[in-house]
Amino acid sequence: MSEKLIGSCIFGQSGGPTAVINASAYGVIRAALDADEITTVYGAANGIKGVLEDKLYVMDEEDPKELELLLHTPSSELGSCRYKIADPEKDDTDYKRILEIFKKYNVRYFFYNGGNDSMDTCNKISRYMESVGYECRVMGVPKTIDNDLFGTDHCPGFPSAAKYIATSCMEMNKDARVYDTGMVTIVEIMGRHAGWLAASAALATEFGSGPDLIYLPEYDFDMEKFLDDICAVYNKTGNVFVAVSEGIHYADGSFVSEAKTAAQDGFGHAQLGGLASMLANVVKERTGAKVRGVELSLLQRCGAHLASATDVSEACAAGKEAVNQAVSGVTGKMVAFKREYENGNYKCVMELLPLESVANYEKKVPLEWINEEQNGVKHEFIDYVLPLIQGEPELPMEHSLPRYARLKKILAK
Amino acid sequence: MSEKLIGSCIFGQSGGPTAVINASAYGVIRAALDADEITTVYGAANGIKGVLEDKLYVMDEEDPKELELLLHTPSSELGSCRYKIADPEKDDTDYKRILEIFKKYNVRYFFYNGGNDSMDTCNKISRYMESVGYECRVMGVPKTIDNDLFGTDHCPGFPSAAKYIATSCMEMNKDARVYDTGMVTIVEIMGRHAGWLAASAALATEFGSGPDLIYLPEYDFDMEKFLDDICAVYNKTGNVFVAVSEGIHYADGSFVSEAKTAAQDGFGHAQLGGLASMLANVVKERTGAKVRGVELSLLQRCGAHLASATDVSEACAAGKEAVNQAVSGVTGKMVAFKREYENGNYKCVMELLPLESVANYEKKVPLEWINEEQNGVKHEFIDYVLPLIQGEPELPMEHSLPRYARLKKILAK
Repeated sequence: MSEKLIGSCIFGQSGGPTAVINASAYGVIRAALDADEITTVYGAANGIKGVLEDKLYVMDEEDPKELELLLHTPSSELGSCRYKIADPEKDDTDYKRILEIFKKYNVRYFFYNGGNDSMDTCNKISRYMESVGYECRVMGVPKTIDNDLFGTDHCPGFPSAAKYIATSCMEMNKDARVYDTGMVTIVEIMGRHAGWLAASAALATEFGSGPDLIYLPEYDFDMEKFLDDICAVYNKTGNVFVAVSEGIHYADGSFVSEAKTAAQDGFGHAQLGGLASMLANVVKERTGAKVRGVELSLLQRCGAHLASATDVSEACAAGKEAVNQAVSGVTGKMVAFKREYENGNYKCVMELLPLESVANYEKKVPLEWINEEQNGVKHEFIDYVLPLIQGEPELPMEHSLPRYARLKKILAK
Repeated sequence: MSEKLIGSCIFGQSGGPTAVINASAYGVIRAALDADEITTVYGAANGIKGVLEDKLYVMDEEDPKELELLLHTPSSELGSCRYKIADPEKDDTDYKRILEIFKKYNVRYFFYNGGNDSMDTCNKISRYMESVGYECRVMGVPKTIDNDLFGTDHCPGFPSAAKYIATSCMEMNKDARVYDTGMVTIVEIMGRHAGWLAASAALATEFGSGPDLIYLPEYDFDMEKFLDDICAVYNKTGNVFVAVSEGIHYADGSFVSEAKTAAQDGFGHAQLGGLASMLANVVKERTGAKVRGVELSLLQRCGAHLASATDVSEACAAGKEAVNQAVSGVTGKMVAFKREYENGNYKCVMELLPLESVANYEKKVPLEWINEEQNGVKHEFIDYVLPLIQGEPELPMEHSLPRYARLKKILAK
């Protein structure tokens, strides 16, 4: 146990929203409010941008019951950002400003909840504060539906998205088979570079009915083979249900959807979308079948009504762990999950990883979990994902509609 | 009470699937299996096509527990069709064939579950059987997410779709507001000629947060006014969430989406879709804002995981009522719902309507429930729809995924 560090904390949310990022927020905020060492708990409006712009909400002013509702409130309640912070060696403007704000509010703890890019931000802030001798403990809390964070068994947000995708594919697959006339349904699922989410559609096939074919970005995409695969199933059954990852790409690295979109987001990623309808047109031309393209769109990442209780509980625990570890002296780490089995039962154990080991790496679906035909996953993947989607949270309802947290969001002066 | 009519029955599902059409199926099948007058219960594969093709499943052979799971199984479990039956005066080929099948299996009861077109089919079969002196009681069970069936307060299927739309809009609206950079989100909702479904998005706004603007097909669409409305909200808040009915059309009757699609379905309806991205492009051009188009797609009609318990229970009751009324002598009617209030509490009462009064009419959202600006609904609509979405059914789960009915579907010989 290192020396007690007394001061306030800032918590921020970054990157795309998930169904459980607010559960992590609750974990951080609740543990921080309960920690003797932490004097005031600030929530940054729109992540690091809120720090730079001095827009901090005072969490101590919120109704504890409303805060607890964050457990089941989807999306990023404090607002998010996709702001890429410069390398401090190249341009330290932002860091000087952050230091100024930290000093203004006597911030000694900084908790940042996000994916690879956010862990990079976290890491840079941690190193900068150290370099200028400002004592501040910086901790990362993982989050990403993409499940591509390095070093952790899985990421909060992914299990709920996987459950949403599996359930939706079960339901849509039922819908896609009601007519006795031929039909091809192509479902586009999020995932830029890693196929974890599209692969999760296999749960539907395993435990009910779901995709006949699944294409992941882990392998190069071959349009001719794709069309052959579809025709083979279509000729046999007259009905094909296909799941594709938005990030499928040709051997030269260009996204299959790329011709359709040019816009770029703040990190230089091509902005994908419209892939399902594009593929639907290609398949229609080739097969003459009735083809439907469906984009799962926003709901797969914010469908809190289909969240995994396991995910909600782990997301919250990760937030609490970050605070408890920081208070006890840890800094420069991200909370990570390790999977253990106790009498054959899944158990999630938390551990700490150095921020720099996580930042900017991407974890993909192991190739040995993908079938030889490169159009589906093996049972190893099912064994991996199934424990993560277990349990249905008890959602607070009002008028039979979700009752989300309503925060006052009082700005610090 | 009329004379006892002993014989078998056929039940068929028609038109687009819903989250609760199988709950009506369960109601019909269970009541028919329990009725002394009904000797065998047949389920037609793909609606009237199954009758014409002599493809009938023997429901008596099914496991009663699996049949009960139909209550929570989305889509049309027996298969559906969009087969338009000819006028018997013009071409009686189909009717002769139906009569042949009815005689072969001694069918004395015919129950058909569908929307306007299906009630028309039902009515024609009823009239034909009467004209040739074949005693058979024909009953319609209502179904359509579009809620456009004439003479009934509402239709099974609509409440669950409305609940799905309201919940999804609440969740997506949260997601659409996480960044502090401007954003316009346009959500396309089903509904060809009537705006009941798109209007239901107003529940999200009323009880949490949802669309700022809603456009229904009840009024002619004006692109300039639409863009002005969006700009007005955007300039004020920097964020606009818009719900549009797929059936919005210009004053000349042409669908706004029409330029994009040409295919026609079996009833001569233009096949809509792609409207959201089309409008997104127009708005992007005008405002320069980041615009996202989202199509709710199939899930709004088959999302059983968000079904209304009220809807499930009413859908099942309608099926049972059709059987019980037929057995007691009624024929040529559709089961309809009448709304009553008991001490201020919503109560659904069943009544019977002549099939010909329902067939081929379309019930639209009353114009007096739409606001003056024609971009939203008034409280009368909320009062109408709110009681219908109440209650969450207890969904049977396995491995934390839905467990749907698995029928043997043994064909009659």
